Amino acid sequence: MRPIYFDYNATTPVLPPVRAAVLPYLGEQFGNPSSGHAWGVAPKRAVAIAREQVGRLVGVGAGQVVFTSCATESINTVLKGLLGQRAGKSLVITAVEHPATLAAAAFLQEQGVRVTRVPVDGEGVVDPAAVIDACGGNTALVSVMLANNETGALQPVAEIAAALGDRGIPVHCDASQAVGKIPVDMRQLGVQYLTLAGHKLYAPKGVGALVLSPGQNLTPLLHGGGQEHGLRAGTENVALVAGLGAACALASADLEVEGERQRGLGLRLLQGLERLGADYRLHSAGVPRLPQTLFIGFRGLAAGDLLSGLVGHDVAVSGGAACHGAETTLSHVLEAMGTPAEYARGTLRFSWGRGTTGEDVDQVVERLGRVLGSLG
Amino acid sequence: MRPIYFDYNATTPVLPPVRAAVLPYLGEQFGNPSSGHAWGVAPKRAVAIAREQVGRLVGVGAGQVVFTSCATESINTVLKGLLGQRAGKSLVITAVEHPATLAAAAFLQEQGVRVTRVPVDGEGVVDPAAVIDACGGNTALVSVMLANNETGALQPVAEIAAALGDRGIPVHCDASQAVGKIPVDMRQLGVQYLTLAGHKLYAPKGVGALVLSPGQNLTPLLHGGGQEHGLRAGTENVALVAGLGAACALASADLEVEGERQRGLGLRLLQGLERLGADYRLHSAGVPRLPQTLFIGFRGLAAGDLLSGLVGHDVAVSGGAACHGAETTLSHVLEAMGTPAEYARGTLRFSWGRGTTGEDVDQVVERLGRVLGSLG
Repeated sequence: MRPIYFDYNATTPVLPPVRAAVLPYLGEQFGNPSSGHAWGVAPKRAVAIAREQVGRLVGVGAGQVVFTSCATESINTVLKGLLGQRAGKSLVITAVEHPATLAAAAFLQEQGVRVTRVPVDGEGVVDPAAVIDACGGNTALVSVMLANNETGALQPVAEIAAALGDRGIPVHCDASQAVGKIPVDMRQLGVQYLTLAGHKLYAPKGVGALVLSPGQNLTPLLHGGGQEHGLRAGTENVALVAGLGAACALASADLEVEGERQRGLGLRLLQGLERLGADYRLHSAGVPRLPQTLFIGFRGLAAGDLLSGLVGHDVAVSGGAACHGAETTLSHVLEAMGTPAEYARGTLRFSWGRGTTGEDVDQVVERLGRVLGSLG
Repeated sequence: MRPIYFDYNATTPVLPPVRAAVLPYLGEQFGNPSSGHAWGVAPKRAVAIAREQVGRLVGVGAGQVVFTSCATESINTVLKGLLGQRAGKSLVITAVEHPATLAAAAFLQEQGVRVTRVPVDGEGVVDPAAVIDACGGNTALVSVMLANNETGALQPVAEIAAALGDRGIPVHCDASQAVGKIPVDMRQLGVQYLTLAGHKLYAPKGVGALVLSPGQNLTPLLHGGGQEHGLRAGTENVALVAGLGAACALASADLEVEGERQRGLGLRLLQGLERLGADYRLHSAGVPRLPQTLFIGFRGLAAGDLLSGLVGHDVAVSGGAACHGAETTLSHVLEAMGTPAEYARGTLRFSWGRGTTGEDVDQVVERLGRVLGSLG
C-alpha cells in the first residue's frame, strides 16, 4: 500500500528547491559569515538574502527579521524578553496557544508574572473583547496565535492588536502554522512581534524566525556575539537559514493559488466522509480556518483506535486525544473548546499540503472507511 | 592562486560523511520524531543514534546529552539555568572565556548576580588556586573553557573541578574548541556541565550539545514540548543532529593519530617562520595547547595589514587585534594576558585541521613571507 502523509501540521517535507538552497552551505560555502576573508562572503550574503525573503513573505523589511533555531525559541525569546525579571507585570494569552507559549507562560508565572489565559468559544476562537478586557496597566505583552495547530481556526489577531496598539501594549503573534499557508502581513496584523517556523513551511527543522516591528526593545534570550542585530547570539545556521529563505520565496510565489487548491482537497475529503456515511463533527466548522487542516471528531470512537487503524493502512494523521489505559486525555485545545466527549475522544487531525493530490484524498477516504468499518 | 583556509577555529568544513548523514533528513526522512506514525520512526532513531555518538566522544551515556542549536545556547542555558532569578548568588569565570560566557555573565550581573572574572597569566592560563579561592558559599557555578579559541591554551579544568566537587560547587566547561581536537572525557574532567559546538568539529553550523552529569537540576532556557528530557523544548533539528552525531563518530575514530598529524603541521609552520627570519612571538608557547592552533604576534606590525596582505594572497586566517582608524583594539584574550603591545598588535591566529596538508603549510609560509616582505 502506498504510504500517505496527512500530517503536514506536525512537519512538512523539505521541498527540493529548498534542499538545493541548503546544500552549498554544507559543502564548499562552509565559511563563517563573521569572517572577514573570502570564506565569509557567500555565507554572509546567503543569510542576507534569506533575511529579505523571509521579510518579504510577511510584508516587512529584512532589518526586522531575526533568525532563531525554531518557533519555540522565538516564543521563549519574546515572552521572557519582555517579562523575565518583571514580577508583578502581566501576560495575556489564550487557552489554545502552542505548548511553547503555555509552558513559557507557566514558567514566568512561577517567577511572579501574572498570567491570564483567555478562554475560547466552542469553535476554538477567542473573543477579541475578552482579550482586550483582560489587559490592564501592568500588561507587558499579549500573545495570540494566528492559526491553531489542531483546529486550524484563525484567531482575531488584527482586531486585538488594533485595540491594544492605541494603549501601547505590544502583541506577539505565533504565526507558525499560518505563514506559508495563508497570506500573513505583519503590518496588516498590526503586531509588534511575529513568530514563524521553518519546518511548517517546507524548510528543515532547526530554523525559525522572530520578526519585530521597528523600535522594539527586547532583551535577548541568547547573549554572546553580536549576531542578528544583537538580538540572537550564536554563529548563524547558514545552511538552514538559506533553506528557510528559499521556502519563504516559494511560498510567496503562489500562496493564494496553492491555498485554494488545498482548500479544494479539504472539501473533497469532507465529501468523502459524507459518502462513507461517517458520524462525525468538524471542529471549528463555523469559523475561518486554514485551508489544509480538518480537525474531525468521530462519534463514539477513540482516537487511539482510529490512529492504530490508519497506521495499519499506511496513513499518517495526528490525534486530538490520547489514551492512557482506561483514561482518555483530550488535547488542551479540545478541552478549552468544551467539545462534547462523544466527539472529542475520537478526534483526528488531517493536514495536507503541496505534495498532496486528489488521489491521495480519495485513498485516505477509502482507507478510513475500512478502519471505520472495522471499528463500527 | 589556490585559496588556503587556515581558520578552522572560526568554523570547519562539513566533512563528506557528515553531509551524507544529514541528507536523508532533508529528503525522504523528513518526519517529526514526536510523531507516532511511520514517518516519526527513522528521525527518532537518528536522534537517538546521534545522542549515543556524541556521548561516546566525551565518555558518557546518551542519556546525558541534550542537543541545542549552538554552543552559545548551551552556555546561556547553563549560566542562566543556574543563576537566573538568583540575585546575590555568585558566578566565577575566567577573563578569557568565549564572548557567549562573558556576555551571559554580564547580563546576569545586571540582574544582581555577583560575577568574578579570574585573571590569567602571561601565557593565557588561569591559576586553578585563584579560581578555587574565588569561590565562596554563594557560588552557584564556575565556568571555565577547556581550550581557548584564540591561543589554543588548555585550562586546568580537571584540577578546578576536583577541588570544587568536594565543596558541591558545579563546574561548567565550555569545550567547544577542544572536542574533536583532543581527547575530552567528561568524567575525567570531573565537570557537571560540558558544552560542545557542531561547527567546530566538522558538523554544520546550527547544532551543538550540552552534556550533563547525572542528577543535575537545571532550569531550561527553552520551555515548551518535552523534547530533550524536558531540558530543551522545540522540534528536534533532526538533520543537523544526525550530522553532529556522525562528526563525533568520525572524531572518535582517529582523534589521537589525527591530532599528532596536525601537531606536526604546526611544527612545520613554525619552522617555516624561522626560515623566513620573521620576528615573532608564539603566544602561550610554554603551556599545553591545542595541536592545530598557533597564535602568533609579529613584532611591530598591525594585524589588519597582515590580514589584508594574506587576503590578497588567498590565505584565510583570523586576527587578534582590530584597527579602528588610528586606534587598535586588542582581543580580550591578548588584553587579559598583558601581551606587550609591540607583539600583540600584529597577532594572527593560524588554525588548521583534517583538510590541511603539509603543502598547504608550505604555501602559507611562502605567501606570508611575501606579505611580511611587503610590510617590512
